[in-house]
Amino acid sequence: MQYTIGLDLGGTQIKGGILDQAYKTVVKDRIATEADGGPGHVIGRLALLARQLVKKAHIAPGDIAGVGVGTPGPVDPKTQVVLMAPNLGWTNVALHKTLEDLCGGWPVTVVNDANAACYGEYIAGVGHTEKVRHMVLLTLGTGIGGGIVMDGKLFVGPHGAGAELGHTIVHLNGRPCPCGQSGCVERYASSPAIAAEAQRRVAAGEKTILKPTDKTQQVFEAAAKGDAVACAVIDEACEYLGAAVANFVHATDPELVVLGGGLTHEGEALLGRVRKFYKKHYWKAAPSYIKIVLATLGNDAGFIGAAGLAKRG
Amino acid sequence: MQYTIGLDLGGTQIKGGILDQAYKTVVKDRIATEADGGPGHVIGRLALLARQLVKKAHIAPGDIAGVGVGTPGPVDPKTQVVLMAPNLGWTNVALHKTLEDLCGGWPVTVVNDANAACYGEYIAGVGHTEKVRHMVLLTLGTGIGGGIVMDGKLFVGPHGAGAELGHTIVHLNGRPCPCGQSGCVERYASSPAIAAEAQRRVAAGEKTILKPTDKTQQVFEAAAKGDAVACAVIDEACEYLGAAVANFVHATDPELVVLGGGLTHEGEALLGRVRKFYKKHYWKAAPSYIKIVLATLGNDAGFIGAAGLAKRG
Repeated sequence: MQYTIGLDLGGTQIKGGILDQAYKTVVKDRIATEADGGPGHVIGRLALLARQLVKKAHIAPGDIAGVGVGTPGPVDPKTQVVLMAPNLGWTNVALHKTLEDLCGGWPVTVVNDANAACYGEYIAGVGHTEKVRHMVLLTLGTGIGGGIVMDGKLFVGPHGAGAELGHTIVHLNGRPCPCGQSGCVERYASSPAIAAEAQRRVAAGEKTILKPTDKTQQVFEAAAKGDAVACAVIDEACEYLGAAVANFVHATDPELVVLGGGLTHEGEALLGRVRKFYKKHYWKAAPSYIKIVLATLGNDAGFIGAAGLAKRG
Repeated sequence: MQYTIGLDLGGTQIKGGILDQAYKTVVKDRIATEADGGPGHVIGRLALLARQLVKKAHIAPGDIAGVGVGTPGPVDPKTQVVLMAPNLGWTNVALHKTLEDLCGGWPVTVVNDANAACYGEYIAGVGHTEKVRHMVLLTLGTGIGGGIVMDGKLFVGPHGAGAELGHTIVHLNGRPCPCGQSGCVERYASSPAIAAEAQRRVAAGEKTILKPTDKTQQVFEAAAKGDAVACAVIDEACEYLGAAVANFVHATDPELVVLGGGLTHEGEALLGRVRKFYKKHYWKAAPSYIKIVLATLGNDAGFIGAAGLAKRG
């Protein structure tokens, strides 16, 4: 039996696991990223987690075919260099070379983390359950990431900059985004965007049970209690999201649109609204073959996808 | 030498040509569609033009490897049935079967016309000149069509509904579109949309040299003379278009964005503005490898792409 290791590099934690050839996770674990230590230190942490996983699984190093790493930001698909990872403070880090040396020669494959999560859901999550070959995934969290699988293959783009769906402009000259653009869907439908809009309305004196420091979870709680302001804030976010989903469907013609990331903890309160607004904004004759669903792998999607994408040596 | 025939089925005209294996057009011609005659009659017209082209080129029928047809509306990539072509009044027309019979057995391939135009520019137009493998094309005319080539292959989507870029929503709950959506880019940047907005401003009494019946060409002429209203109308159209291009670039990570269709007769007055607004709306660090250019094949792009996509028997 051959295995691959998947590592999902986040700003605070590295999650990892080992998959067998049927994409089943045999062990998983996580350690702190310690991003302050700089790229060299973090690459050492990646290697440490990889070794710990192999030990935990009682697998001979020779049975590991390769390592996949999901990282924030775009990755050059030719050189595998991490071009930019703002939340790690990285620019042009050739992670795979060093990691290959530290791991004793297992081939290392590096991909964008949202792309990896998409592939994870495709091979072992909801994409697998739904038996599709074409899907789009949005990770809804602090930011909004995207991934596209076409005909069973992950689409990363020739420059590794494909599927940057969170920076789709949905409102011309709208809210400024740290990315430099204005009106990105991330500025309306990410978790911080929802909290900020709620806080803005509280500060403006609108009649609501929301408090000035409430976060996204409290906004959903207030909406569940029928608070009109909370409902309006979430509806606005989901309307932009629904229209953005319509755009992605027009562009990529998928069978499945998957919502993942922290915001999906809100379950039906999120999904039902996105479906409603997608239906409002998409062609009236929306084909029945397109489904919008929640991701099923939670925080494991990233390392599972990375392991699935690992080149086998 | 083997040849393929390409036919581009429009509402009023069918354009066609014969290509050699180097994608060089050896003959071309056009005849009236006579759409009023219904699908059967129009398919007869397609066959007639195909035969006329072969005669004109002095090619033996046995040297024709296949026929490609570009049609309006989505085409089922499995059955090749034209699902819907509103401007022909067609629903579910199995064009290729009848056409194969009428053409004495040459295999017939059917594709969406904007997709075909994209492939035409890729194999023999500006995509070929620019030596790219990844491009997006927008046909700017009465409507806005789209096409995507990824890694040298035309992307049509599993349901033949991919690259419907004209129905990208750029303004939430904006102008109603005949497609049933609101705020489609086609409603801001197509030729009729530009004329309609100019007429609206004239009717509203804005100070302009434009007349109530002026069309898009006159709007561009007035803008060239410095008319502020005409400039504002064109700027608005190109700003939406520039933002939409930014979205397509984020989604598909191309090397080249090609503007085609009737509106490109306006040349630099259009291209310069789209480039300017793309630059305004896209990430500040817009990579230098992405170019926005005008198509170079004019009305021939459709049949050239269709011929290039023809299956060889």
